[in-house]
Amino acid sequence: MGIETVAIIGGGLIGQSWAALFLAHGLHVRVQDVAKGFEAGVRDAVARAWPDLQAVGMAKGDVPWDHLSFSTRIDAACEGADFIQECGPDRIEVKRQIVAQIEAGAAADVVIASSTSSLLASDIQAGAAHPERIVVAHPFNPPHLVPLVELVPGHKTGAAAMAAARAFYEKIGREVVELKRDVVGHVANRLSSALFREAVHIVAEGIASAEDVDRAVMHGPGLRWALMGPYLTYHLGGGAGGFRHYMEHLGPTQAARWKELGDPELGPATVARLIAGVDEMLEGMGDADPAARRDAGLVGLLALKRGLDGDDQP
Amino acid sequence: MGIETVAIIGGGLIGQSWAALFLAHGLHVRVQDVAKGFEAGVRDAVARAWPDLQAVGMAKGDVPWDHLSFSTRIDAACEGADFIQECGPDRIEVKRQIVAQIEAGAAADVVIASSTSSLLASDIQAGAAHPERIVVAHPFNPPHLVPLVELVPGHKTGAAAMAAARAFYEKIGREVVELKRDVVGHVANRLSSALFREAVHIVAEGIASAEDVDRAVMHGPGLRWALMGPYLTYHLGGGAGGFRHYMEHLGPTQAARWKELGDPELGPATVARLIAGVDEMLEGMGDADPAARRDAGLVGLLALKRGLDGDDQP
Repeated sequence: MGIETVAIIGGGLIGQSWAALFLAHGLHVRVQDVAKGFEAGVRDAVARAWPDLQAVGMAKGDVPWDHLSFSTRIDAACEGADFIQECGPDRIEVKRQIVAQIEAGAAADVVIASSTSSLLASDIQAGAAHPERIVVAHPFNPPHLVPLVELVPGHKTGAAAMAAARAFYEKIGREVVELKRDVVGHVANRLSSALFREAVHIVAEGIASAEDVDRAVMHGPGLRWALMGPYLTYHLGGGAGGFRHYMEHLGPTQAARWKELGDPELGPATVARLIAGVDEMLEGMGDADPAARRDAGLVGLLALKRGLDGDDQP
Repeated sequence: MGIETVAIIGGGLIGQSWAALFLAHGLHVRVQDVAKGFEAGVRDAVARAWPDLQAVGMAKGDVPWDHLSFSTRIDAACEGADFIQECGPDRIEVKRQIVAQIEAGAAADVVIASSTSSLLASDIQAGAAHPERIVVAHPFNPPHLVPLVELVPGHKTGAAAMAAARAFYEKIGREVVELKRDVVGHVANRLSSALFREAVHIVAEGIASAEDVDRAVMHGPGLRWALMGPYLTYHLGGGAGGFRHYMEHLGPTQAARWKELGDPELGPATVARLIAGVDEMLEGMGDADPAARRDAGLVGLLALKRGLDGDDQP
């Protein structure tokens, strides 16, 4: 028996986007929140996401509004649900309270997947009645378009929960990356943070403007990173000898460059300089809506990559 | 009077790609090298690049082979040239010898642009007769497709040379990022190195496989980096409050994460582990040609971004 009903705990930006994705894959979705008027926020977000989900071939027909329901109670939302996607605030004491309320409503073997970006699965599951079914499943914004889901076990997570979560996310078209253990920032946010640290260093030291750092990424290595990660990139950089040749010949250059990378402090003067740089960049962009451009770009990119990989039927 | 003839010093991978790009923009190109049979290598590379240059709207018609000539002498190749693109080996003593030979042939006011990825403009121009016209113009592989050119002055570079180089590269459709001063790795390779350092840490520590690190990038943040850099990304991450809100609320989380990032050594055991991880990834890819996929992807991405930015006529 497969997963038919998913409870989403927390109807903010991430929960709304998960809701659209789950609905597009024929699931019944219950969204829980206590914020006044959150139902309208979820409905608006689903309606906005739907054309993009149709464009990438996931949603068919109109939004199945009768598959979407709401609750202000966590336990009630989880009763009878086959999968729980937790999207509450990233504070550990709040997470643990949410988990307790989920467990009050959910069957004991239902997977609880937390969308947390900054907490550890081991910390979230501490104190749970059934910690073995708790995993971290971290999406990237916006989750209904960016395919990555980082799946992370805590110390007490069971293999069955990891396998069930992987099967669930793969069935709805996600690219699952499984971590062997939980670390702060998982994988993708650690990589993003490493890049941002050097981006801050470059602007703080007056080497280049924030706008030019962004342009360097999106007109340079960022184009390749949409298509391949750093390992395959350096493998191609090694020519016929591949990654081994790269490491033997340019590894020492890399290691030397690492020693030159910055270790900036985010003090008030640096933060002010960064904000001024971003403001300057935004002024140059005029009335363009960067979020709309991003989503249109992501839709186009997903179609492009499907074509490259010979997988025209998503 | 504009630039009509460009001399390319060094007919390796980068020089070949520059040659194709320059030819596509109607320029006369002289390629200098001393390697046996380098002429055939350049011709092959230009012929291979041409369909992609047509697909992105830069090349029209057949390859203008009569615009391409060869020389084994640096001074002869530079005589009468309007612009010099230097693509020799990245060793400072070799670069300085090449510069001396360029200056023996080129007019005193012609810009000499070095494609170096690891040397400083200030070091390259030391000892030159006319150091004020020497700049670094660093492309990304493959230069005929990736639009970024990092333009970097040395201590002695004049504003006129920087302005002339910028005008030249912008005229041939490049996205020029100008650094205020020269630093090791310019901007984009510093950012790439920062990301790779953490990618090495993650694999070396057994957190995730090399393949999964690559998948995390290309199915996650890499998709966004093709469209926007880290500053605009975090600006959008700040919601209605933008980058300022992001820095005020999540800046401390970022700074805390920086402290957790790895500082791996590239010792023999780590290098062996990385190579094994890449080999495993490559086995899983079967017979696919990742360089061909990359180039097809870049062509598609450039077309996609032109469409997003309402610039259908390149």
